[in-house]
Amino acid sequence: MDGHFRGDMSDPRAVRRLCREGAFDGLTAGVAMGRVQANLVVLEKAAAFEFLLFCQRNPKPCPILDVTEAGDPEPRAIAPGADIRTDLPRYRVWRDGVLEAEPTDISAYWRDDFVGFLIGCSFTFENAMADAGLPLRHLERHSNVPMYVTDRACAPAGRFAGPMVVSMRPMTRAQAVKAIEVTARYPRAHGAPVHLGNPAEIGIGDLDRPDFGDPVPLGENEIPVFWACGVTPQAVIMERKPAIAITHAPGHMFVADLRDEALIGA
Amino acid sequence: MDGHFRGDMSDPRAVRRLCREGAFDGLTAGVAMGRVQANLVVLEKAAAFEFLLFCQRNPKPCPILDVTEAGDPEPRAIAPGADIRTDLPRYRVWRDGVLEAEPTDISAYWRDDFVGFLIGCSFTFENAMADAGLPLRHLERHSNVPMYVTDRACAPAGRFAGPMVVSMRPMTRAQAVKAIEVTARYPRAHGAPVHLGNPAEIGIGDLDRPDFGDPVPLGENEIPVFWACGVTPQAVIMERKPAIAITHAPGHMFVADLRDEALIGA
Repeated sequence: MDGHFRGDMSDPRAVRRLCREGAFDGLTAGVAMGRVQANLVVLEKAAAFEFLLFCQRNPKPCPILDVTEAGDPEPRAIAPGADIRTDLPRYRVWRDGVLEAEPTDISAYWRDDFVGFLIGCSFTFENAMADAGLPLRHLERHSNVPMYVTDRACAPAGRFAGPMVVSMRPMTRAQAVKAIEVTARYPRAHGAPVHLGNPAEIGIGDLDRPDFGDPVPLGENEIPVFWACGVTPQAVIMERKPAIAITHAPGHMFVADLRDEALIGA
Repeated sequence: MDGHFRGDMSDPRAVRRLCREGAFDGLTAGVAMGRVQANLVVLEKAAAFEFLLFCQRNPKPCPILDVTEAGDPEPRAIAPGADIRTDLPRYRVWRDGVLEAEPTDISAYWRDDFVGFLIGCSFTFENAMADAGLPLRHLERHSNVPMYVTDRACAPAGRFAGPMVVSMRPMTRAQAVKAIEVTARYPRAHGAPVHLGNPAEIGIGDLDRPDFGDPVPLGENEIPVFWACGVTPQAVIMERKPAIAITHAPGHMFVADLRDEALIGA
């Protein structure tokens, strides 16, 4: 029933309860509007220091919202009472960098040395952009935002290293200026763009062939504007192949209690 | 020769070289003005995740500027080529929470599982406050800033927990407003104050009896203004007693290449 749930999806606790009960396993775009959504990465504690350091060194692609204690599934800072093992609509389980399963519950995989990282998501700044009257071409077309692997290396940390992944939104130059102002207010949701204009300058060959998501057309007088993307940590995990990692399934985010406004400023 | 060195102390590389050569072991207040100085905490890698998480959860007392890789003494982000084993004027070595030595070089203690944490310091925002014409009573009196243990608990992370330590600077209400504006620009150097006015509200009984540093008088129409303090992690270490920890000696900071302006914004 992916995407077809008809219940009240405006309350984050209700959304998480429906996930937990197996009654919702769909995409979370548009769900609990105005509440922060988060990317999830679960790793063994043995890898947790290096991954946290990777995030600390790369705050644009990996803005940390919350980190759970080893073995404790509750993200206390952003959603007290929630359980990251059951409260997302869908997960991905990776062994040695290979996708093994896409369950709707990870209780059976959970271990007492698992640490969960909740990482800021572009939905937060897209709400703010929409409120500012800025275009979101992929939403107009009901498609996924186009994402590209760049030639910009993230700052490595221990075993974790890899290129930055960016998302792209087309807009006029005047809209781009406004978009920079608006998104710069949300450093914990990827913040200001990392690049605008000429895609080749950051190693993107063809905008019509995104590495993830769907292509969108550029209008007359529009330029591509690029933001650091929360897919970056997943790309790093696929490349660096930790023995075990669990993430959210793309678009199936953790819905937090925190309001978008709580992420304004540092 | 604490405090009596007469060489050129305006260049951060020169200061670090003098430390390395054993030619300077003094206080770093006023040294390499305009460059960022940092608190140092060195821990075993086994404790590094929990300590980094503690800092991430308590960014006001513990703003992370740089973290070294296990065994690597070079803080690449804030001072490429520097060596945290030799380049501070003086250190403190703690075993099981007890002060064991105050060496000027920690090469003999260094291990290949040691991780160094460089944490923002109030010198950065004090320079900005002085530039804005705000009073710094402790500097006028050539004394150390008064610091107090509050009843505000830091957010715990694993084994690390403890109360927030604050520093206090007296000013008029109008100056306090200006000081909030100025220091809020430096979130990586403790940022805006955590409290102003009534000390009892944050568990401080007597301003004339600071827990660290020296008392300063409040003038007519002045109120105490409190900032989160970089002594917090040292207080936590003393309380939580890790098997081994090395810190800078109070006032004997790491002098980075980074300019104060680089810490503006997130």
